[in-house]
Amino acid sequence: MFQTFTATTRPDQGPPRLAALRAAMADAGVTGFLVPRADAHQGEYVAACDARLAWLTGFTGSAGFAAVLPDIAGVFIDGRYRLQVRSQTDGAAFTPVNWPESKLEDWLTDQVKGGGIIGYDPWLHTTADIDRLEAALTLRQILLRPMANLIDAIWDDQPDRPSAPAVAYPIALAGKTSDDKRAEIAAQLHAAGEAAAILTLPDSIAWLLNIRGGDLPHLPVVQAFAIIDSSGAVTLFTDPAKFTGLPPDPAVTLRHWDDFADDLAALSGPVRVDPATAPHQVRLILDGAGVTITDGDDPCILPKARKQPAEIAATRAAHLRDGAVMARFLHWFDIEAPKGNLTEIDVARALEGFRAETGALKDISFDTIAGAGPNGAIVHYRVTEATNARVIPGQLFLIDSGAQYEDGTTDITRTLAVGDVGATERAAFTQVLRGMIAIHLARFPKGLTGRDLDSLARAPLWAAGRDYDHGTGHGVGVYLSVHEGPQRISRAATTVLEPGMILSNEPGYYREGAFGIRIENLIVVDTAPPLPGGDDARAMLCFDTLTYAPIDRRLIDADQLSAVERGWLNAYHAQVAARIGPLVSGDTAGWLAQATAVI
Amino acid sequence: MFQTFTATTRPDQGPPRLAALRAAMADAGVTGFLVPRADAHQGEYVAACDARLAWLTGFTGSAGFAAVLPDIAGVFIDGRYRLQVRSQTDGAAFTPVNWPESKLEDWLTDQVKGGGIIGYDPWLHTTADIDRLEAALTLRQILLRPMANLIDAIWDDQPDRPSAPAVAYPIALAGKTSDDKRAEIAAQLHAAGEAAAILTLPDSIAWLLNIRGGDLPHLPVVQAFAIIDSSGAVTLFTDPAKFTGLPPDPAVTLRHWDDFADDLAALSGPVRVDPATAPHQVRLILDGAGVTITDGDDPCILPKARKQPAEIAATRAAHLRDGAVMARFLHWFDIEAPKGNLTEIDVARALEGFRAETGALKDISFDTIAGAGPNGAIVHYRVTEATNARVIPGQLFLIDSGAQYEDGTTDITRTLAVGDVGATERAAFTQVLRGMIAIHLARFPKGLTGRDLDSLARAPLWAAGRDYDHGTGHGVGVYLSVHEGPQRISRAATTVLEPGMILSNEPGYYREGAFGIRIENLIVVDTAPPLPGGDDARAMLCFDTLTYAPIDRRLIDADQLSAVERGWLNAYHAQVAARIGPLVSGDTAGWLAQATAVI
Repeated sequence: MFQTFTATTRPDQGPPRLAALRAAMADAGVTGFLVPRADAHQGEYVAACDARLAWLTGFTGSAGFAAVLPDIAGVFIDGRYRLQVRSQTDGAAFTPVNWPESKLEDWLTDQVKGGGIIGYDPWLHTTADIDRLEAALTLRQILLRPMANLIDAIWDDQPDRPSAPAVAYPIALAGKTSDDKRAEIAAQLHAAGEAAAILTLPDSIAWLLNIRGGDLPHLPVVQAFAIIDSSGAVTLFTDPAKFTGLPPDPAVTLRHWDDFADDLAALSGPVRVDPATAPHQVRLILDGAGVTITDGDDPCILPKARKQPAEIAATRAAHLRDGAVMARFLHWFDIEAPKGNLTEIDVARALEGFRAETGALKDISFDTIAGAGPNGAIVHYRVTEATNARVIPGQLFLIDSGAQYEDGTTDITRTLAVGDVGATERAAFTQVLRGMIAIHLARFPKGLTGRDLDSLARAPLWAAGRDYDHGTGHGVGVYLSVHEGPQRISRAATTVLEPGMILSNEPGYYREGAFGIRIENLIVVDTAPPLPGGDDARAMLCFDTLTYAPIDRRLIDADQLSAVERGWLNAYHAQVAARIGPLVSGDTAGWLAQATAVI
Repeated sequence: MFQTFTATTRPDQGPPRLAALRAAMADAGVTGFLVPRADAHQGEYVAACDARLAWLTGFTGSAGFAAVLPDIAGVFIDGRYRLQVRSQTDGAAFTPVNWPESKLEDWLTDQVKGGGIIGYDPWLHTTADIDRLEAALTLRQILLRPMANLIDAIWDDQPDRPSAPAVAYPIALAGKTSDDKRAEIAAQLHAAGEAAAILTLPDSIAWLLNIRGGDLPHLPVVQAFAIIDSSGAVTLFTDPAKFTGLPPDPAVTLRHWDDFADDLAALSGPVRVDPATAPHQVRLILDGAGVTITDGDDPCILPKARKQPAEIAATRAAHLRDGAVMARFLHWFDIEAPKGNLTEIDVARALEGFRAETGALKDISFDTIAGAGPNGAIVHYRVTEATNARVIPGQLFLIDSGAQYEDGTTDITRTLAVGDVGATERAAFTQVLRGMIAIHLARFPKGLTGRDLDSLARAPLWAAGRDYDHGTGHGVGVYLSVHEGPQRISRAATTVLEPGMILSNEPGYYREGAFGIRIENLIVVDTAPPLPGGDDARAMLCFDTLTYAPIDRRLIDADQLSAVERGWLNAYHAQVAARIGPLVSGDTAGWLAQATAVI
């Protein structure tokens, strides 16, 4: 099993560790110390050795940080984690702080009277974060001091850095050789007059070198830093032992983690560094060595987002495999759930089991969200043994899950009826579905960002006085991160949508204490085909569908659908039947035929 | 008649004036001189004395500028004016430049080899414009030099500055006293730690002081500059003679135009100046006197945009009066147009005549756009005697017009069938109508900008491969500017929509050389009423309708409308019948009943 449901921390572990940290702070001569959840690569997942926030506080959420002072230790958590932080941390030792409503700089100003020095590990914070914080705090006589990590100093049994073997990512799936990718990045640097760029995001490096790894849960990357110069040569800083199974690449020099600082200092500028993602330590080293820095986006991000035709083809195959898994799962759920004996963990385990039976499952792409009834309204709910709820007939069940296959990353949400559910749930489900269909059907001019489409998914809910407090869609990688930037469909989107970008399409509606609804398919931006009888020469884009799995027909109020919406739904289900039907066996095939019947 | 259709300039006037300007440039020791269309108040309309660009070049469009060098004189015009500039200017003397595709800085760099000095009148350019230009040109060894206006020096019969009487705007219409408005702005300045703000926009001043004037066509303002200090006291710089008909206001000091510079220099800072709208000369004076400047928005803009309930009530009355005008006009058009004898000018004249017959017409709010057939596809078409086309049966006719009444400013577009028109036109009209209805029906959470709604109006056109190259809506004042910021519905919108903001809702579709379609109503942002059976506590906003006039039913393909869309249309027409019917006489009332019948 890739997903665990047991607690990995205990609240009682926090106080002695906090005391040890405060002793280390006193020894180091600092008033406070910052403990972020992030590692040096700023990703969604961290290795065990980097789970410093969880080790110190017990809090295991996917975002947040602690600010430790002599008399108070604030744990800054966003709206998703208000309840979880209270159950995972010792309330006498740690004080939850609602973030981003309360800003760190304001909290420090309130707590640190008469000035002070706050230590931080400059590998774990980006330049953008430190610049913003320093600008606010300097006026308030609070200084930030970069220093060696005090948690690492007191964490006796801190695990080693992961060192899983790197593997080659086949050209048949990647669609473009690493040589060609490196030449493309080199040309980008050359045009910008930059001598090199620093890469600190493991999925950028994995994409660039056509490699994958096993250093992290759910994200198949090799942890590393890299320097790419304007000739396309790459120096990789990692544990070279990870590469013993791969043939050497003459354009890639393997160096050890510890060589990164020296090699940075030896560069001739201008060197591109992404202030939004690179560790602040990179800037400190380059500045210290007098190397000219240019602020700029990681040069791999956009080329990676524009998927190659081979990547799209590969991910289509992955999605059909996953569609067959979903059909088996949904069929099983329809039989088992109404009996009233299942728990959320049973359901998550069953789904992972169906995925494992494909023989192709490398990992799940994130911990499954399996929420029964009211738990479905908790947007980022992760079931544990402590919260595990029974699946009760008459309620909705929300399941959001995904797989990492070598040929693609999937992410799918379905909301399911357990027996008969009420008219309120059906009306809301139909509104969510109409929003999702609006994105599927969108045909739009080139040059738009996802911000310009976000409202199309919300308008049916808005009309009923409803909305959802998350974006409509995020970018998705191909056997890489299930949450990949920069493309997205949300009011925060700034990236122009381009053919080949993969996105989720997942509007929702959540009624606290009652039920949650979300329906999610993955889609890919494509050039819109000419319209029959079309008369306009505008170049338009559209979304192609990647995900094929039934949408629960029992939850749809067909009278609420327009003819066009109903047409989309029936055509989608016809495609599900045609593409997935041949991949499942008899009983499930029969179930699927019913589940995809015309409405 | 407020609208004229005769040419006010001749191409042959340009060359001698250009020669005189070049002589003045040589005398002043500059390589070039900039001649913008704008006056010191950066508005859409300029007084005759400020029509320097038209005087020099012959070009009378509403935007653009000339850059005059010894051997070439570029006239920079946007896409609307590519044809017009060629007919109005002498092609041997003036060179049209496509703007903003070609930037002034790049054009100057190409034309001025080896460096040079470009003179400009700092009253006529904003700080933002000059800063941007200087940043680009300094690197290219081209210097900008602020100087007295060289056009004024050579324009012998330049008209005097306008000096129409100022009139009080009744509190019953304004809804808020000038005292209260000044106290509100004073509090804003106080909170920002600013000693004063400089006001250079005449509609800000008109709003603040509850006055209107007659210095400009179509925009009932008093031309002036003003300083408001953090106590709420206002000093007004203008021709004091304009105010002899008004009782003195103890909080408003009247000064002469010529005193503005001295009074600016005598200020103690910090002084708020809006770099996007204030003449650069304001900054030069303040900088020269060592007065601290803070960049910030004109403090009147947002309070002016959030209309008072009394302003909304007043503008509703104005729109009903204008609705009755439109009913008479549309009835007349339906009788006369199919005979095939009307021209575009006849139609524009007739409409202005119906408006004048109300006895309440102060001015038209802009020159009527009256486009027959292919002329309807020219988005900002203004008919002249040279272009005047016949209204031909079988074609569409697009008419976009508005009125200035004391109680409100209107702006309405209707696209009309002249006899029987084709299926293509009807299909496109119905798509445009569906987009317009989507905005009318929009219910949306607080906190959105018009950018977040723009796509709702376009989606039906996008689905057919179509779009329009203008915003969906602009802000509108109350007996002020028909194009008022900062609220808008477009991809360029950044202002959060708030109750009381008036906007146009005007999607369109244009097929070059064939026809144009636009349908426009004015709407006002309001708090959305609770939904029947509503269950969600989110605070939502909606749009209330201001404009009531029939939408041509003959152009609607009812099969393309959803039940909700058809419901909106029929309810709208029922409201038109109920509100406008009682305001028109027998024949028109009968016509109106047919024109608003259920579809």
